[in-house]
Amino acid sequence: MKIIVTGGAGFLGSRVIRALLAGAGRQDGLPGFDAIVSVDLSPCPVEDPRVASVAGDIADPGFVRQVVGADTAGIYHLAAVLSGGSEADFDLAMRVNLDGTRALLEAARAAGTVPRFVFTSSLAVFGGPMPKVVPESLATMPASTYGAQKAIGELLVNDYSRKGFVDGRVCRLPTISVRPGRPNSAASSFASGIIREPLAGIPADCPVPLDTRMWLSSPGAAVANLVHAMAVEGGRIGPWRTLNLPGLCVTVGEMLASLERVGGSGARALVREAPDRRIMDIVCSWPGAFDTSRAAALGFVGDSDFDSVVRQYRDEFSGVRTA
Amino acid sequence: MKIIVTGGAGFLGSRVIRALLAGAGRQDGLPGFDAIVSVDLSPCPVEDPRVASVAGDIADPGFVRQVVGADTAGIYHLAAVLSGGSEADFDLAMRVNLDGTRALLEAARAAGTVPRFVFTSSLAVFGGPMPKVVPESLATMPASTYGAQKAIGELLVNDYSRKGFVDGRVCRLPTISVRPGRPNSAASSFASGIIREPLAGIPADCPVPLDTRMWLSSPGAAVANLVHAMAVEGGRIGPWRTLNLPGLCVTVGEMLASLERVGGSGARALVREAPDRRIMDIVCSWPGAFDTSRAAALGFVGDSDFDSVVRQYRDEFSGVRTA
Repeated sequence: MKIIVTGGAGFLGSRVIRALLAGAGRQDGLPGFDAIVSVDLSPCPVEDPRVASVAGDIADPGFVRQVVGADTAGIYHLAAVLSGGSEADFDLAMRVNLDGTRALLEAARAAGTVPRFVFTSSLAVFGGPMPKVVPESLATMPASTYGAQKAIGELLVNDYSRKGFVDGRVCRLPTISVRPGRPNSAASSFASGIIREPLAGIPADCPVPLDTRMWLSSPGAAVANLVHAMAVEGGRIGPWRTLNLPGLCVTVGEMLASLERVGGSGARALVREAPDRRIMDIVCSWPGAFDTSRAAALGFVGDSDFDSVVRQYRDEFSGVRTA
Repeated sequence: MKIIVTGGAGFLGSRVIRALLAGAGRQDGLPGFDAIVSVDLSPCPVEDPRVASVAGDIADPGFVRQVVGADTAGIYHLAAVLSGGSEADFDLAMRVNLDGTRALLEAARAAGTVPRFVFTSSLAVFGGPMPKVVPESLATMPASTYGAQKAIGELLVNDYSRKGFVDGRVCRLPTISVRPGRPNSAASSFASGIIREPLAGIPADCPVPLDTRMWLSSPGAAVANLVHAMAVEGGRIGPWRTLNLPGLCVTVGEMLASLERVGGSGARALVREAPDRRIMDIVCSWPGAFDTSRAAALGFVGDSDFDSVVRQYRDEFSGVRTA
């Protein structure tokens, strides 16, 4: 049996694949598998005989059905055009984010194995007036195309699960920070940039006000939770499959204070306030904190504090030791 | 300029067309038009030189684009596979309710006129645990395929409106009662049947418990509100275009008491309790009352009480005068 990971060449996807390989046969509840298929535009960077890479158009039902067969035990659907990119190219976003998700669900249904189907959603499904802490009963009123398409994906995964076509799990991920590497097309890309670049001695622009509340997860916590999402038994989740995953609620100012404590005042001084209306319109419409009690009861866990997150990044990736 | 009505041959559609023709040039705010195009599988029953009927597949983008041109001032999208039918034929429902709505929105976008776009949604978008009165901020957790697809349509109309492609208005209609004519494939069809058949001396089955709360609108109030939805200025609605329309909250037992008061005890005695799990699973997942204050502030109006609704039906349609 196999597990499919769309976006398997990406940041989260490749880490999920590594974690699955490490946990196979050891992590309780994970479905048995002997192969992982990464579906992405570029090859998966994980070198392991159990990992195969397939390149193709996820919105092409024929291609997707060819990839997903009767030997599919689980699917991670991580591939997406991100928030900034979706706002810039509506048609591409509709094709990848909506048609792609639907093609994958249809292929999973056709496989007949009722595979576990982990779909990553986002706080971008919310917008408009919002309580200080977002409960799972809050209406999705997205203020971006990306958010609208993630909200639609949530509904599709839930209905396909209700019908018994797949065994779905919708994970509303916090914004991931600190991501290594280069900026991406997400409007929230700065949430990594304002930590990552200064730790490498590079100036960074902060496009939102310092009192903007962010809902964050370290890459490590996000990956562990995505593996857990595949391992947890569907019956324990209940009929509604959408979960607010754990995160940290911190302001951008608090993030920069963590940067200063971990990276020193020189690093902090490299961050310049440069308000950007396009970014603010998207990011400031997102909630800053969520009620994650249902996820916690199901065994999902979050980070302890943002200082540790910055330290974790510095120790793993940056090689900078200034504090 | 023209107004397009999908489902224009149907119960609500044909009445909306009659009301538009009556209000043209007289109802404040209605966009100017000199033609109405009904898009439906059968011809629109309204005989008027301004009404043209077009038959075709609403999920075929080419067909829909041919119908919607640069002379389109407004669109009513009423056509749908209903709740019972959607539960029975998932693929047909996906095609008509999801692909059809998307094809229509795309054609409206291509028209370039930013037409007013009235989309009828439903209380079926709700499910799961629910407060006694549903606020507009409640999450859509549909327990039916029809509800999931209506919730997706709501998101699409909102995002197409936010992008400036259409000027959308999403009307969450109550269950319409009393509908004349024959039962339809909606799971809520009984909400008309238990009044309509007894008034005509015909026995009727009641498939849900008598304490089931129903959220109802007379056909007259629903049609008046749909015309108003086209007439109200978009700027007044605000960025989020989904509205809970006014309704009456009554239990099935109270509906039958109204039947008895208006139609006599003989009519009441014709209703037999016949629990139907398939109907209950859908209808009992719907909310019984909504907060409609935003719609009320925008000038939408509801019925005063269910006795009047039954009397209105009896006087207009049934010809029965037993009380």
